[in-house]
Amino acid sequence: MDPEFDLIARIRARAGSARDDVVLGIGDDAALLQVPAGRQLVVAMDTLNAGVHFPDGTAPADIGWKALAVNLSDLAAMGALPAWCTLSLSLPGSDPAWLDGFLDGFVSLAQRQRVALVGGDTTRGPLSVCVAAHGFVDAGKALRRDGARAGDGIWVTGMLGDAAAALAQWRAGHAIDPALRTRLDRPDPRVATGQALLGLAHACIDVSDGLLADLGHVCTASGMGAEVRIDLLPASAALRSQFEPRARRQLQAGGGDDYELCFTAPASADAALALVAEDTGVAITRIGRIVEGSGVRACDADRKPWTASRGGHQHFAN
Amino acid sequence: MDPEFDLIARIRARAGSARDDVVLGIGDDAALLQVPAGRQLVVAMDTLNAGVHFPDGTAPADIGWKALAVNLSDLAAMGALPAWCTLSLSLPGSDPAWLDGFLDGFVSLAQRQRVALVGGDTTRGPLSVCVAAHGFVDAGKALRRDGARAGDGIWVTGMLGDAAAALAQWRAGHAIDPALRTRLDRPDPRVATGQALLGLAHACIDVSDGLLADLGHVCTASGMGAEVRIDLLPASAALRSQFEPRARRQLQAGGGDDYELCFTAPASADAALALVAEDTGVAITRIGRIVEGSGVRACDADRKPWTASRGGHQHFAN
Repeated sequence: MDPEFDLIARIRARAGSARDDVVLGIGDDAALLQVPAGRQLVVAMDTLNAGVHFPDGTAPADIGWKALAVNLSDLAAMGALPAWCTLSLSLPGSDPAWLDGFLDGFVSLAQRQRVALVGGDTTRGPLSVCVAAHGFVDAGKALRRDGARAGDGIWVTGMLGDAAAALAQWRAGHAIDPALRTRLDRPDPRVATGQALLGLAHACIDVSDGLLADLGHVCTASGMGAEVRIDLLPASAALRSQFEPRARRQLQAGGGDDYELCFTAPASADAALALVAEDTGVAITRIGRIVEGSGVRACDADRKPWTASRGGHQHFAN
Repeated sequence: MDPEFDLIARIRARAGSARDDVVLGIGDDAALLQVPAGRQLVVAMDTLNAGVHFPDGTAPADIGWKALAVNLSDLAAMGALPAWCTLSLSLPGSDPAWLDGFLDGFVSLAQRQRVALVGGDTTRGPLSVCVAAHGFVDAGKALRRDGARAGDGIWVTGMLGDAAAALAQWRAGHAIDPALRTRLDRPDPRVATGQALLGLAHACIDVSDGLLADLGHVCTASGMGAEVRIDLLPASAALRSQFEPRARRQLQAGGGDDYELCFTAPASADAALALVAEDTGVAITRIGRIVEGSGVRACDADRKPWTASRGGHQHFAN
């Protein structure tokens, strides 16, 4: 029997949450799914390649978690409720222990977010994980990049720079701080926060390439500019304790893989946003404002222009 | 600027058909899509890896075509009407000419089938193409693998073995017959036939791993057995002219990459099936019947058992 089928059987046995809207899951030519009436379908697809998106030697469970997390982060940035995913897994050989580890991480996040794995394929090839995530949002309500308006506050969830800090320690050959490493390997997609922002935020994006680069995408899509106070960017205790301010700010402003949300909202939403942070248990921090014009201007506490040594995240191996 | 964005701009400029049901396509964190009321969503996802699913040196336009075709073939096997796709493209480097060629093939099939490219990503890595295809089918009407019934006729569309024949010539270092090569590089997903089979066929699968292997999946899913007459398998003129009967039948029964449909239908559908073939311009051939029991029994014209030298397609590099 084709070894692929053994893999598929292993995957099928652990396909995440059972859901009534999955008419037919893994095991046919395609999945059959029921989108609820009045809802739009939201689809994201991202690939992680070995040696590019995660260092060789990353635990398979962490790869599984992250491959789903980066896609759920995209859904979160739209304010969508996740529902289903498909997985295309390219593996250099048959390694049941590796696959089981991978599924441990993938399924634990899928169950936490009530996402059903409904299809995909397994192929032979260099290690690569492609996931497509599907969710729902009420028609016309999705958070988009193109809605920022002059005067909006600019906010971010959680903390910035931890994942990039872990990679910096890894690159330098240092021991990687466990708290930073967890943020690199197990990003927590801000799904609940994204949905809570519906009707409050004007624009939203997830921070995958680096804050300033991603905020730049919002500005371009919205036809607006942005002013960001670098000294206001939220930093974790681990980041503060292990990186001096100058290096830390580079990581916060330019490092990637944060998978936090960056969004804009009018001042009238301030009280509601405070409640969102309280309800979700995820901090949100105002870091700047949207202005007429174009481009992102970053300054420090003293209002002097701040320049990153580079603008965006290039993934660790670039 | 991140070179990825240049790639995305090139892809976005050629994103296939415009469709009213695409609320938001390429350019945000995720696509926003509208499934028509009363329809179920059908999702397939397949990856092609260089050196595994196509020989090195395959023209980029052929890779683009085939990456979409194999996914549309999965939708066809469900009887679904294709609508949207996402594309995750891993490339070892930035090569605009390669990308343009790839898009030539991908977009030409997308336009022919009115499929819109709505999202995905580009990453650095070994050449790999992952596509997720989305389509619709009326609720409860999809063709599945599990509906075959004793007494059903077993049918296949088109011709079998051509793609495997092209690979056999390539492996042997021979010149590849152009007609066979086209069938390997540019499979024509049987989308119209699949939809025409709704209400007629009891079960359906696309032939990607090899006829006997794929028919075996139908038998397993349906809890049935199958009897197949190997001498009745349809062969193209090119295949007949270049392979003697014994080799030809191995290719037809066990070779993969045909992307024809194999389906079962009751005798009461015979007249309607003849009309389907006439309307779609795609031949359909009865090759056997579904019986009580399990497994696929193949025999020759003299009713003697026929045994393949191997059961299924393992892709060319295995």
